[in-house]
Amino acid sequence: MRPGFFVTLEGGEGAGKSTQARRLAERLRGAGRDVVLTREPGGTPGAEALRELLLFGTAPLSWRAQALGHMAARAEHLDRLILPALNAGKVVVCDRFHDSTVVYQGYGVGRADPTVLEFIKQLRATMSNEPDMTLLLDVPADIGRARIQARGGAIDRYEAEDMAFHIRITEGFRDLARRHPDRITPIDAGCAPEMVEDAIFDTVTRRMHAKTAI
Amino acid sequence: MRPGFFVTLEGGEGAGKSTQARRLAERLRGAGRDVVLTREPGGTPGAEALRELLLFGTAPLSWRAQALGHMAARAEHLDRLILPALNAGKVVVCDRFHDSTVVYQGYGVGRADPTVLEFIKQLRATMSNEPDMTLLLDVPADIGRARIQARGGAIDRYEAEDMAFHIRITEGFRDLARRHPDRITPIDAGCAPEMVEDAIFDTVTRRMHAKTAI
Repeated sequence: MRPGFFVTLEGGEGAGKSTQARRLAERLRGAGRDVVLTREPGGTPGAEALRELLLFGTAPLSWRAQALGHMAARAEHLDRLILPALNAGKVVVCDRFHDSTVVYQGYGVGRADPTVLEFIKQLRATMSNEPDMTLLLDVPADIGRARIQARGGAIDRYEAEDMAFHIRITEGFRDLARRHPDRITPIDAGCAPEMVEDAIFDTVTRRMHAKTAI
Repeated sequence: MRPGFFVTLEGGEGAGKSTQARRLAERLRGAGRDVVLTREPGGTPGAEALRELLLFGTAPLSWRAQALGHMAARAEHLDRLILPALNAGKVVVCDRFHDSTVVYQGYGVGRADPTVLEFIKQLRATMSNEPDMTLLLDVPADIGRARIQARGGAIDRYEAEDMAFHIRITEGFRDLARRHPDRITPIDAGCAPEMVEDAIFDTVTRRMHAKTAI
């Protein structure tokens, strides 16, 4: 069994992933855990350079190029940060991971075309590094979008997409959660942040204890 | 059978690929062919942005990240330029392609580690777009390196590597040519450029006629 514990947070725009990832890391540190808090795309200088190009680059990129580009950033992130941290027995909390590629490139850009989903599935299998557990922060697409608009700031390649795209994203994540009930725990992220935080912390500590108890 | 004709030129640094690719394109145009001359990494605005990051970025990238990044640029190049040109019946002449990823990331950065070579092989199979023929411009590593130093200009991530790296590159390409004798034709690129040009043009026209004759 791989040492350490690898938690990913997933969800559409405005689901509160970054806030909740930070709060989860703080709560786990408070409980005496050695935690690495990170995000995708990004997390290392090379992967952040790829993030800039993938999210804020103005040149078009085909769905295959986007999927491979996100995987490139992920490989760098895994090889330089995530895997060394896990091997040192740490807890890694990561804002977005593989599921975001399946959902954004597969369901969003690729409109769930079977060829697209199969390509991404093969790519993911080639990478072969899966999280111990995934929290899906689920909010309706219109609420998530309203939060993003209220927040202001730079709009990236995916945030700039239309409502139909964001509905495909929300449905894509729900579909993944149904297909992987053992790994993915859906969390109602429409509630007050404190309630979401408690639900996440409870779920994660239970799963960490279960892994250690095996 | 796929329409059009797809020729790639491969080889280490200073083998004369760019010059010979340009001359081949000119000769084929002179013979009445509709030719697209392009290069990797790059060839479209999105792929050129990835090229800049992959070749001239200062942040380190793991071998997996490099391989996936080159594949991302390749996907964009295929989807937006190469495949549409081939589907329109054109000849595509491309300076570097898949073999460069196998050799630079697999033999160069990855030192021919079986895990690395297997990863790149799987990735290549997932992409599934192979050239009709490949010309390997073969020069000894020390001659190629001397040509690059005489040329001057910016030095990229791979040109900056040491002599042992460039010897692995030269040997890697030769190894690929032995494994794929039907697709890869080695050309002695130590000769005068005019002789290399003639050898390339003869080989390509023979293969194009053979494909059309089938």
